[in-house]
Amino acid sequence: MIKLDYTNVSDKIIGDEGLDIISCFNEFAPKIREIITNLNMNKDKPGQWLQWMNLGYNEETVWYVKEFAAMVDGRFDNVLVLGTGGSALGGLALSHALLKPYWNLLDKEQRDSFPRIFFLDNIDPDEISGLLDILDLKKTLVNVITKSGSTAETMAQFMVIKDKLEALLGDDYRKHVVATTDKETGILRQLANEEGYKTFVVPDDVGGRFSVFSAVGLVPLALVGVDIDEIIRGIKIMDLNLKNTDINNNIAAQNALIHYLMDTKKDKYISVMMPYSSRLKYIADWYVQLWAESLGKEVDRAGNKINNRPTPIKALGATDQHSQIQLYNEGKNDKIITFIRVDEFDNQLDIPNVFEFTGLNYLAGKSINQLFNSEADATKVTLCDYKRPNVTIHLPKINEYYLAQLLYMFEMQTAIIGELYNINAFNQPGVEQAKNYTYALMGRFGYEESANQLNEKLNNKVIL
Amino acid sequence: MIKLDYTNVSDKIIGDEGLDIISCFNEFAPKIREIITNLNMNKDKPGQWLQWMNLGYNEETVWYVKEFAAMVDGRFDNVLVLGTGGSALGGLALSHALLKPYWNLLDKEQRDSFPRIFFLDNIDPDEISGLLDILDLKKTLVNVITKSGSTAETMAQFMVIKDKLEALLGDDYRKHVVATTDKETGILRQLANEEGYKTFVVPDDVGGRFSVFSAVGLVPLALVGVDIDEIIRGIKIMDLNLKNTDINNNIAAQNALIHYLMDTKKDKYISVMMPYSSRLKYIADWYVQLWAESLGKEVDRAGNKINNRPTPIKALGATDQHSQIQLYNEGKNDKIITFIRVDEFDNQLDIPNVFEFTGLNYLAGKSINQLFNSEADATKVTLCDYKRPNVTIHLPKINEYYLAQLLYMFEMQTAIIGELYNINAFNQPGVEQAKNYTYALMGRFGYEESANQLNEKLNNKVIL
Repeated sequence: MIKLDYTNVSDKIIGDEGLDIISCFNEFAPKIREIITNLNMNKDKPGQWLQWMNLGYNEETVWYVKEFAAMVDGRFDNVLVLGTGGSALGGLALSHALLKPYWNLLDKEQRDSFPRIFFLDNIDPDEISGLLDILDLKKTLVNVITKSGSTAETMAQFMVIKDKLEALLGDDYRKHVVATTDKETGILRQLANEEGYKTFVVPDDVGGRFSVFSAVGLVPLALVGVDIDEIIRGIKIMDLNLKNTDINNNIAAQNALIHYLMDTKKDKYISVMMPYSSRLKYIADWYVQLWAESLGKEVDRAGNKINNRPTPIKALGATDQHSQIQLYNEGKNDKIITFIRVDEFDNQLDIPNVFEFTGLNYLAGKSINQLFNSEADATKVTLCDYKRPNVTIHLPKINEYYLAQLLYMFEMQTAIIGELYNINAFNQPGVEQAKNYTYALMGRFGYEESANQLNEKLNNKVIL
Repeated sequence: MIKLDYTNVSDKIIGDEGLDIISCFNEFAPKIREIITNLNMNKDKPGQWLQWMNLGYNEETVWYVKEFAAMVDGRFDNVLVLGTGGSALGGLALSHALLKPYWNLLDKEQRDSFPRIFFLDNIDPDEISGLLDILDLKKTLVNVITKSGSTAETMAQFMVIKDKLEALLGDDYRKHVVATTDKETGILRQLANEEGYKTFVVPDDVGGRFSVFSAVGLVPLALVGVDIDEIIRGIKIMDLNLKNTDINNNIAAQNALIHYLMDTKKDKYISVMMPYSSRLKYIADWYVQLWAESLGKEVDRAGNKINNRPTPIKALGATDQHSQIQLYNEGKNDKIITFIRVDEFDNQLDIPNVFEFTGLNYLAGKSINQLFNSEADATKVTLCDYKRPNVTIHLPKINEYYLAQLLYMFEMQTAIIGELYNINAFNQPGVEQAKNYTYALMGRFGYEESANQLNEKLNNKVIL
């Protein structure tokens, strides 16, 4: 199992900046018990957006995903995922972590004949044109993902790609498309029915940022050879652990409470996610989305304005020791840092004794692994010297089982801290207005009034 | 020239969260005049770390870099840069922006026969092993970059690579190494002399994070066909503009003052850098390093503890609209967002009318470019609706000339805001302790005492 080490948020280590952990846990034990009980009681109620808690138990979906992956095995050189936000980020983060590094640059044999994988999660015209230059669409399977079927970025991407696919392949282009969308409604579902695409379902009451373990994430992962049974096994064991209503035995509750108290009592409103592993780089991006969209809310469930809401930041060890650590040590003491450490890397890389310089002798005969771990330890202790709170999550290895545990733990932690803040962690009202403005600027029918308002603001010549 | 639009920090737009720009500029005009005058007066004094201001005028270095690039032209399929922090980030950011997207996946012809380029800026054993699996070292030129010659990460990487290169090539391995380091001192200089590597110089009094326009950045860029003359032209014209001591005519001073006042008067201590261009993604990383290491200081020049110091965050438009914008709109109002907008993309990508759905009709016949720009406009206006300050920097195009202007402008802005905070923007005392701890953990001679301290802390079994 993954482990959480919260020693370095204790007042025994960092003094006044820290918490008396035992008494905090005791004080909040009843509240945590209530939160976890309610989450589990309410998870099947429609409209609660808690269906992500059931994704470890959906054996049928897993079976269908595996069947599909087996059916198309060997037929494609590339998988192209068209998705935006949560529809792309989970698959991107997990595939980057689980596939061999530099996957898309490996030759086919090194990839065990699995396809390369591309996530198009932006609408930069230069990037899309560049991607079209390198992709042989005849050998590409396109997985278009949008729950609503009307995400402007994803559908615009798909319209561009569909046009080119069809020009190349005629009616057969259909066999190159798999759509992941709502089971009944929306434009993409309608399109899939008419055109005859293979489809997968985004379950009801699973938000984008909580969708990684649904078909949204599982389909692309299975297509490149990731063991999705092991993912499911990881979620299940973690879910079992996190059903424990005793805070002393629930790491998601512990970390949620620590982050909540650090924000509200100690003004640590910035949550830094810093894995020590290049392969886990995009896990930090995924966490940032999860934390930011879930917790960045103006009002609580009662409609009252709230003061405390954290800001997440992504970092990468050891790289960012030479970028952000100066700030974390000496800047405003407003951060709590989460390290992710890997106990055992897949590779052991020795540093050979190639130079006769005393200044380098201390490296010779050691390993890159040892250096990497020493840097992580050194950074952690230095942060404590500067009285900066930090927690460490330990992954025994980078594999499907432990990564599933990690991401599921973060999801539960987010749900619990949402309840501690008493906010709705599952909506995103703050992005609606920009969507409407975009529709208005693009001339969508029904948005004429918004367009007028907007053009006034854009053309507003303010005298400063 | 690039342009700065600061309309949306005005109190005329965002009310009490904004500034009365004209009166702020007037009030600080004398201070800004003094700062810019002093920077230019002091730039050639040793120990001021202002030599980055002269990098636009070093024609000889440019000549030598171009000569070297011409000499090795066609000899290598890969350039591998070994560098840490500022030694890698500038070259990475500029090459990612200036080369065709997916450069390393293009075939040789699409790359006009220029090599692929890899920046190894971490010491993850899995990542390094993975890189060795895809790189044919026989066709690889290794550029090892460290001013001091003793950066542990970079030298450890180099020891691993040198061993493999020499095993493959024998004595000829030397022709595959180019070292960028101090002109006289340090282990790497000594090594280069003994082994006979081609070398370039990191000039004195240029810190890592201000080194992108020295040989540190220019060598890798020239090797992959970037027009470094155009870079120099961009720096020069911007330097000329930024010598203007009148704040009304100096965009670096304007943006520095705006960020300073937003932090100190309006509690906007988080600076978000959000380019709307996938190609500019790593410019945000570069900015984060520049801002964090330069401004994250505990004490001012007089040794007094200071309260205000900003935290930088990187984001990417439009992708992060679906990740962080919910938070920027509705979270704590503690951020100032800098958008970077590209007026004209290299590619125009039309959205074909492929589906007969009214729900998508508004996209058909428009372009991806238009959608991208609409999203950026919509996000900007929404932020203003939520009273969130934001500035926009306009790049006419993505090319060497304008990107050099942009980065040089950010450097000057950082120097100026450092003076406004009255801190030393050019040192990084907060990373020294972790370096010492790392040496101690790795058993470096002379660090025994530190090792004892450290092991005590690491093995400290605290009773919480």
